[in-house]
Amino acid sequence: MSTLRLWSLRTSPFAGKARVAFAEKGVAVELLEIDPRNRPARLRELNPTGRVPTLEVDGHAIRESTVICEWLEDTQPEPAFWPADAGARAMGRGLLRFVDDELTRPFFLSMRKEAFGLDATDHPDAVEHLRQQLSRRWPVAEKLLGRTDGPWLLASEDPTLADLAAMPLAVRLPQWKPELVPDPDGHPKLTDWLERLRQRPSVAEVDRQGEKVDGG
Amino acid sequence: MSTLRLWSLRTSPFAGKARVAFAEKGVAVELLEIDPRNRPARLRELNPTGRVPTLEVDGHAIRESTVICEWLEDTQPEPAFWPADAGARAMGRGLLRFVDDELTRPFFLSMRKEAFGLDATDHPDAVEHLRQQLSRRWPVAEKLLGRTDGPWLLASEDPTLADLAAMPLAVRLPQWKPELVPDPDGHPKLTDWLERLRQRPSVAEVDRQGEKVDGG
Repeated sequence: MSTLRLWSLRTSPFAGKARVAFAEKGVAVELLEIDPRNRPARLRELNPTGRVPTLEVDGHAIRESTVICEWLEDTQPEPAFWPADAGARAMGRGLLRFVDDELTRPFFLSMRKEAFGLDATDHPDAVEHLRQQLSRRWPVAEKLLGRTDGPWLLASEDPTLADLAAMPLAVRLPQWKPELVPDPDGHPKLTDWLERLRQRPSVAEVDRQGEKVDGG
Repeated sequence: MSTLRLWSLRTSPFAGKARVAFAEKGVAVELLEIDPRNRPARLRELNPTGRVPTLEVDGHAIRESTVICEWLEDTQPEPAFWPADAGARAMGRGLLRFVDDELTRPFFLSMRKEAFGLDATDHPDAVEHLRQQLSRRWPVAEKLLGRTDGPWLLASEDPTLADLAAMPLAVRLPQWKPELVPDPDGHPKLTDWLERLRQRPSVAEVDRQGEKVDGG
């Protein structure tokens, strides 16, 4: 396989999702740790928005965490992230968007804004709004998990990418904000799902830091 | 092929992108027009967020516009939305995210907020912020289009899904807010790109309205 470099940030949930994906596929990747307040010029050259994760494959950039995961699936089909059936795969991809946009994003965005302050364009209560949005989604997640007999979002023995994407959330939520963890009595399937994700060996990737790269 | 029903809204850019995708593939689909202030119970059953586009395939739901387009690509490979090479496809998928998230979303969100009012959680200047975000992206789009010799975002003879996704923007921007159209002198490739998109027969889909469905 080509030389692979993943521009990453330890605390970024979407970089974490890409790291988990590489580990689950058993594909080695060189990890570069950026300083988000001083993003490297080389990263901006590869990806004008300067965002991570960005994957560098022989000098070409692949941007956005799901796109990186789909590229991994295309180039390294086993173990599969998605079922072979096109309809089931489409359902999985829709569930992945739900996990990324409705669960992971509001939680991590609320943490970032709490830690580093609001943007000038934010509503003054933006942190609280993001957390309300998240807590309104727990019953939806519980319902989605109730559609299958097994522990995962699709009727599959192993987790699909829709499940694996939630690993950074499964780890950071109880670590950073235990008071935001969904009530286990009201959300038994969701509680079990988050716990099963934390039990996978690839969970170590959530905390993995790359080699630091200077900004400029 | 199965019975296909697309839950849609004429003015939604992402429903428009899905309609364009069906037309480009030559796949017939039954179009259902929702009232966004009174979303049908059946839609909420299929997709708990109640959002459009949602595709119903034999009673199962496929949600999110890109997921619907990827399902079309999987089940109806010709004409192809993506190049066969995995690396080029990944680059295309990253560019599609740029078009959706950085161009289409801020423009249409600003229009919706201007027409229907701000949400309680919005900054009072949210409309202006979205428009500033959009105008900061025009030079990035110009640069991305400058990476290839041809008129499209990838080095391809025909547009890929990354290009086609911009069709609702190409139509509505001059129609709804001519003052936001990027300056042609500073953005010749972007101007040509938007014009070429408007010349495709599938442009008619941007304005297509489905059969109205009662809410409840």
